[in-house]
Amino acid sequence: MNKRADGRAVDELRKVTIERGWSEQAEGSALISFGRTKVLCTASFTPGVPRWLTGQGKGWLTAEYAMLPRATNERSQRESVKGKLGGRTHEISRLIGRSLRAAVDMEALGENTIVLDCDVLQADGGTRTAAITGAFVALVDAVDWARTNKHISRKAEVITDTISAISVGVVDGTPMLDLPYEEDVRADTDMNVVMTGSGKFVEVQGTAEGEPFSTEELMVLLQLATKGNADLARMQAEVLAN
Amino acid sequence: MNKRADGRAVDELRKVTIERGWSEQAEGSALISFGRTKVLCTASFTPGVPRWLTGQGKGWLTAEYAMLPRATNERSQRESVKGKLGGRTHEISRLIGRSLRAAVDMEALGENTIVLDCDVLQADGGTRTAAITGAFVALVDAVDWARTNKHISRKAEVITDTISAISVGVVDGTPMLDLPYEEDVRADTDMNVVMTGSGKFVEVQGTAEGEPFSTEELMVLLQLATKGNADLARMQAEVLAN
Amino acid sequence: MNKRADGRAVDELRKVTIERGWSEQAEGSALISFGRTKVLCTASFTPGVPRWLTGQGKGWLTAEYAMLPRATNERSQRESVKGKLGGRTHEISRLIGRSLRAAVDMEALGENTIVLDCDVLQADGGTRTAAITGAFVALVDAVDWARTNKHISRKAEVITDTISAISVGVVDGTPMLDLPYEEDVRADTDMNVVMTGSGKFVEVQGTAEGEPFSTEELMVLLQLATKGNADLARMQAEVLAN
Amino acid sequence: MNKRADGRAVDELRKVTIERGWSEQAEGSALISFGRTKVLCTASFTPGVPRWLTGQGKGWLTAEYAMLPRATNERSQRESVKGKLGGRTHEISRLIGRSLRAAVDMEALGENTIVLDCDVLQADGGTRTAAITGAFVALVDAVDWARTNKHISRKAEVITDTISAISVGVVDGTPMLDLPYEEDVRADTDMNVVMTGSGKFVEVQGTAEGEPFSTEELMVLLQLATKGNADLARMQAEVLAN
Amino acid sequence: MNKRADGRAVDELRKVTIERGWSEQAEGSALISFGRTKVLCTASFTPGVPRWLTGQGKGWLTAEYAMLPRATNERSQRESVKGKLGGRTHEISRLIGRSLRAAVDMEALGENTIVLDCDVLQADGGTRTAAITGAFVALVDAVDWARTNKHISRKAEVITDTISAISVGVVDGTPMLDLPYEEDVRADTDMNVVMTGSGKFVEVQGTAEGEPFSTEELMVLLQLATKGNADLARMQAEVLAN
Amino acid sequence: MNKRADGRAVDELRKVTIERGWSEQAEGSALISFGRTKVLCTASFTPGVPRWLTGQGKGWLTAEYAMLPRATNERSQRESVKGKLGGRTHEISRLIGRSLRAAVDMEALGENTIVLDCDVLQADGGTRTAAITGAFVALVDAVDWARTNKHISRKAEVITDTISAISVGVVDGTPMLDLPYEEDVRADTDMNVVMTGSGKFVEVQGTAEGEPFSTEELMVLLQLATKGNADLARMQAEVLAN
Repeated sequence: MNKRADGRAVDELRKVTIERGWSEQAEGSALISFGRTKVLCTASFTPGVPRWLTGQGKGWLTAEYAMLPRATNERSQRESVKGKLGGRTHEISRLIGRSLRAAVDMEALGENTIVLDCDVLQADGGTRTAAITGAFVALVDAVDWARTNKHISRKAEVITDTISAISVGVVDGTPMLDLPYEEDVRADTDMNVVMTGSGKFVEVQGTAEGEPFSTEELMVLLQLATKGNADLARMQAEVLAN
Repeated sequence: MNKRADGRAVDELRKVTIERGWSEQAEGSALISFGRTKVLCTASFTPGVPRWLTGQGKGWLTAEYAMLPRATNERSQRESVKGKLGGRTHEISRLIGRSLRAAVDMEALGENTIVLDCDVLQADGGTRTAAITGAFVALVDAVDWARTNKHISRKAEVITDTISAISVGVVDGTPMLDLPYEEDVRADTDMNVVMTGSGKFVEVQGTAEGEPFSTEELMVLLQLATKGNADLARMQAEVLAN
Repeated sequence: MNKRADGRAVDELRKVTIERGWSEQAEGSALISFGRTKVLCTASFTPGVPRWLTGQGKGWLTAEYAMLPRATNERSQRESVKGKLGGRTHEISRLIGRSLRAAVDMEALGENTIVLDCDVLQADGGTRTAAITGAFVALVDAVDWARTNKHISRKAEVITDTISAISVGVVDGTPMLDLPYEEDVRADTDMNVVMTGSGKFVEVQGTAEGEPFSTEELMVLLQLATKGNADLARMQAEVLAN
Repeated sequence: MNKRADGRAVDELRKVTIERGWSEQAEGSALISFGRTKVLCTASFTPGVPRWLTGQGKGWLTAEYAMLPRATNERSQRESVKGKLGGRTHEISRLIGRSLRAAVDMEALGENTIVLDCDVLQADGGTRTAAITGAFVALVDAVDWARTNKHISRKAEVITDTISAISVGVVDGTPMLDLPYEEDVRADTDMNVVMTGSGKFVEVQGTAEGEPFSTEELMVLLQLATKGNADLARMQAEVLAN
Repeated sequence: MNKRADGRAVDELRKVTIERGWSEQAEGSALISFGRTKVLCTASFTPGVPRWLTGQGKGWLTAEYAMLPRATNERSQRESVKGKLGGRTHEISRLIGRSLRAAVDMEALGENTIVLDCDVLQADGGTRTAAITGAFVALVDAVDWARTNKHISRKAEVITDTISAISVGVVDGTPMLDLPYEEDVRADTDMNVVMTGSGKFVEVQGTAEGEPFSTEELMVLLQLATKGNADLARMQAEVLAN
Repeated sequence: MNKRADGRAVDELRKVTIERGWSEQAEGSALISFGRTKVLCTASFTPGVPRWLTGQGKGWLTAEYAMLPRATNERSQRESVKGKLGGRTHEISRLIGRSLRAAVDMEALGENTIVLDCDVLQADGGTRTAAITGAFVALVDAVDWARTNKHISRKAEVITDTISAISVGVVDGTPMLDLPYEEDVRADTDMNVVMTGSGKFVEVQGTAEGEPFSTEELMVLLQLATKGNADLARMQAEVLAN
């Protein structure tokens, strides 16, 4: 019973590609695509931490999300030109940072800083989940770079688990995995779920855009998300194995 | 088995008070407290809608959240002085707006605008959930004012359900309801749950601050939140009955 | 001969209330009302001074004034959302700071900083004068807190006098004390007068909104203000005596 | 008994010069100097008023004050580079606007706008009073230009009086007129007085920088200011007579 | 005599690639690379012009340039986070706009707007020249799209010539074409030259970073630039021929 | 064959005046006029350099350009009020800084900072070239002041050449020197040329506002600019000789 415009099953991801090391400048990077959504993720490693954290033996990881003005179907004004960040940008940047911090042992990282930049080059729904999933790959490479360059010790277990994220939603009454833009705008409930490779939840953000939802609907959505994140974790592992 | 610093049971709310009509200027208002947390909520009703919405026969509702600089234990710099809104402020303002729009029939509201202002006068955890719960009371009064003043028709069913919100979290391994600041900072998982009076979910935002969480833990937290929101809905009904 | 809408004599204050210690977070605080005008004043005490003042053995006191968006009859846009402070906000913040510095011996204060926040919760004329009068009470408590907590010595005479402020104006040809909004907009001359408890002037700011004024009119207005400030000083003393 | 560093009597102005029509671009302009203080004042006349005033048959007048970064002895950062106006700039701009509006009959002006720009080229105390005094000359010329160019009728009495301003202060116990920077910083009380040519007060802004002041001191200062403003009014009349 | 680190002749371009139609969202787009420098150029076509241009029968073209924070070897702060555009960004955005307007007949374009966005994904010198060269390709496609979609007439000759740009400079005494970052920082003179396909100059911007330069040096640099721009024009033609 | 509105020959400068030492506050200053264009240039000398340059034994020179709001025929909004610098302001500030750095030996200057402020009091074309030419005079005086005040050694050769700038353009097919506003807006090609007193180029910025230009046209324009800069260098020398 296949009811989606692009022919996918309800629990099927769009085509996912991850180009590891796309950037020659950053310590870690990945160009990730979920269907037509493309996000360039870079991880910048710098020795030292912000002043307020100095001397505690812990590292720091933060993230910034942004969209090119013509990533979307209609051009939007640049936030740099407007002179301020929009609420959506702020919110997603904070989500990416929190999500990846959940997989990092800050004491093992030591007094070093990692900044993840996730820039959406083309947007078709699911940009924040693609960003988190791609940023994890960039993060792993930046930590490897730091180990190779002796900024962190050979034995430090900095990365404690893998992290990926996927969207799920109820569209026309049917729960579905990985919504492109056209499904997303029609969804009654829209949920972004960040999980570890070990199958636990890091973030669950569900919103009733239309009808409020019940515990049962929530359960079905979480099962779909669990399936999708397991698929993503497998792809991350393959990419990182090369 | 009572394990909380303030003597509450794990599924017990802090003392909640709602002073309806606290402001003499706004069309609707409520000063709400959850323990030491105090939020002044006002609802401003204005005929007309923003230009991009004109002519569609629908209303508009938006919200803004802010904190006084010395609402907290240490003074923070004013966002008006910094010249920009922080990410947290943006995020909570958006959450309040989305939550209350879930209870409003925009066509019944007609081409009118309601702005909800939630200003935290004193903060001790749970400011966003108190804000949503208090804003609902202010909203009801603003809609009544508009009906009395013939901006909307006598029969229009603008408010479709009640809305309240509460925080839950896992503190030292125990799931608990309505966390004050000192419990909140120690929580492994922290969740804000917005519900309708009819017991459905409008927003579920769960974050693993420490350990990632399982489906089982999520279920327990949602049950606590359901209990807490039912208590809040009862108090809202009492206050609005007077 | 009683000619005011609210039945007051021309030299009579509106009902004044001062709730000392309203905030549980700040070192000093007062919720003051002049009729329907309500201002929450907090005093934040921090050891240390800004860098440019370090090493001179002197303290620092500054003030910030703001209004909630729906303090007034029509909602105004938040300055934090606009991204800049308006001229009126700047001007009143500076006035409050100058006024209270006039009662503080900066050498007795030592290298400590006090920030006074005056947030108007409801506005009906006279917000700046209520703010100054309430801020003085908060200031006294913050200094006491600092003495108790040994940030300043037991014997230091930090507060050298009391400070209060009141508005006066010529409305329909009659000089009057303490103008609410509706009188204020009709006033030809409008004056804010900050005085010490010992009856001297700290600030005199008179403006001809309509007709320019003569020396004689100025004299009558200063007498009214002297009377009003004496009344306020008495109330401050009572509140602080408890 | 002459006690001032520059040899002036206590009730004597510094050398005042007014170059009328200094700018070839503006409808009215004056380069005014009070001693070493030099302010370029331009008046820009534009037909029409801001949207919120349209259709009421009244004009609008506003003012902006600014200082070149090296007008002062130490260079200050440009407000355009900082990205915001300081409180002092805001406050003085508002004062200049209010002061000159006191001499303009807005109905006679009709639906036209005048903007006064006062840019301090060199600063040595008294910049706001020089700005008001020079702006009045620029204003008169802009109104004449508008009359000549038929934007306002030949018979409209737009300017109802003349306006000038001077500073007074108590320095080392002696009340003095027109303080240069070095006297200003030592003054206990500092007052700016804006008056009409007919000898009435438009603004009285007195501040106790050091000791609070008595009614008697205030009286002496107002007499000095009355004398100084009369001198300035005479010079304005001479300049405008040519 | 080959003296460059990457083995190129002094009058040889780096490897240039142009991926036309890289973006599926924009009306025209190109991902251009000059060696390791990669710029994503999109052209957004919108019917209508800014209000100040309405009713004149002319179109409008503008450009915005930006760099991803980790395009460079060290991460730079986002301008959207800083809240303002840097001088360099402003300057290059203006240069791109001016350069491409030189090839557009605004009357043939009619009352339509084209916005060119040039986002540097990876930077290694020559980002502004790559941006101009790639933006031209995106522009041509956007105009074709508009013709196909009947926003402009079939016969309108909107594009009057081709536009490309290249950098030249004097490095260690030798004039060279197309400088990567490492040559650019060592150059005494640095020049960006924008030309038409017909071999005329649109912009010549030469700067002596070290030693001032003579007319003779200028001539040699312009010859190199003419050669490089002819090569680029040939590549643009090939890409657009497909 | 004299074809210009103001009767000048095509290779003739407008009347140039340079009032050295116009400001009594700055270490160096000049009020320069090119016809009706008037620019006040000040040079502020401060011991020390920005933190990122400390300890390298080198100085720093930077420039800021701005225009008074009514310098032009129509009033423009202040950039300080808008809260951001426009692209044109940024671009010209950077040009002035680069141009003057070309004549300064930063090691001879030692760890000292010079800021050049160029404020346009009246604008009629050529403001950036007048600014550069006047700033050079202010710079020389600031360096002399520093030598006199022993901030730099008596023998240090800080200034290595003289710097001036002039505009040239093709108006109605004729190349011309030093364009006032009315010629500038009609020019097909517009070029600003910064040169040393020794006749070499520091900056060449040519823009085809209308028709692209050929190498031959460029040559003619550079000859005119060379002549104009030689005239300016002579005037600078005369002014500095007094």
